Amino acid sequence: VITPTQQDDPLQALIRQMARLPGLGQRSARRIALYLLQHRTDVMQPLAAQLDMAASQIHACKSCGNLDTIDPCRICRDDKREQSVICVVASVADIWAIERTGQFRGVYHVLGGVLSALDGIGPDDLNIPGLLTRVRDQNAREVILALGATVDGQTTAHVISDQLTAKPGLKITRLAQGLPVGGELDYMDEGTIGLAFAARTSL
Amino acid sequence: VITPTQQDDPLQALIRQMARLPGLGQRSARRIALYLLQHRTDVMQPLAAQLDMAASQIHACKSCGNLDTIDPCRICRDDKREQSVICVVASVADIWAIERTGQFRGVYHVLGGVLSALDGIGPDDLNIPGLLTRVRDQNAREVILALGATVDGQTTAHVISDQLTAKPGLKITRLAQGLPVGGELDYMDEGTIGLAFAARTSL
Repeated sequence: VITPTQQDDPLQALIRQMARLPGLGQRSARRIALYLLQHRTDVMQPLAAQLDMAASQIHACKSCGNLDTIDPCRICRDDKREQSVICVVASVADIWAIERTGQFRGVYHVLGGVLSALDGIGPDDLNIPGLLTRVRDQNAREVILALGATVDGQTTAHVISDQLTAKPGLKITRLAQGLPVGGELDYMDEGTIGLAFAARTSL
Repeated sequence: VITPTQQDDPLQALIRQMARLPGLGQRSARRIALYLLQHRTDVMQPLAAQLDMAASQIHACKSCGNLDTIDPCRICRDDKREQSVICVVASVADIWAIERTGQFRGVYHVLGGVLSALDGIGPDDLNIPGLLTRVRDQNAREVILALGATVDGQTTAHVISDQLTAKPGLKITRLAQGLPVGGELDYMDEGTIGLAFAARTSL
């Protein structure tokens, strides 16, 4: 039972704020708050400082939407990367995931989501105009639509593809679909197995 | 692939710090960092301020070990609570759990853990001397050992019980063990069912 006095308590306020973060609930927020208070000077205060610093120093790149301390971001200003190959992703987390593979040497474009009737996200909520401008200005030769293999992701890919095809000589690709690495057949859904069959490659 | 420049990046530093919090890993830390940067003024900066405020204002109660802005804590100084009934818990989170039931009107004593050979936690690591002092000074009539129904929890209960029995007229109790509320028999382990049988009560 939380009395009115306790509700104004900085501890309860901290737990309430933490419980609103994605993936955390009341229980995990309480656990983290307790841990922080037990590691006040070595974890809690540095974290507060880090949050403040990140909030003031990190900004969205005006060109691609990536998060960085400089604008344009490190990827956009890297002249060893091919500015004519643009990989379209839904969110900055997808940039990080692709960068971890170390295989892509082009640039990115963050849409800020995918079209979703359920979540009320329409074409005007995504940075599609910015992509069209960049495709023209950077004289793009390939646009890779690296969107999730979901209905919403693939719908978004088709909508963008329709707007890009007007440009001659531009290659539009999307990520391959099939079995994930290490995927056992009997753990896969029928959709994935069906797709992998249809798109089978010769050995 | 993270280049040396990116490692010094406040974003990567923030993710690294967050991934060290209990219950969070790299993936959830990245997700939270991204969410925070998308909610800079309404979530991120208030959270930083809240962390700082909590770190400076919340302290452990010198009497019971509870966390509060005042010392002695609200529970210890509440004269509507029975100071002669002391509930011994492993951690502050257990106080919160018991307070949520709204059924206990005594006071608490936080040990700061339970005895654990595996984690190298011996009697000297727990606040047992403080408990013995309080039992004497507050003229305790009951000590409730509210420790987990684990081997370590019950070992700790027995060790404390042995040190307390010297005091005449002091009741030492522990929490009942049995089926949890809503517990279906076929989901319970044999240990719990066996205990519940042995400790069955007449209807």
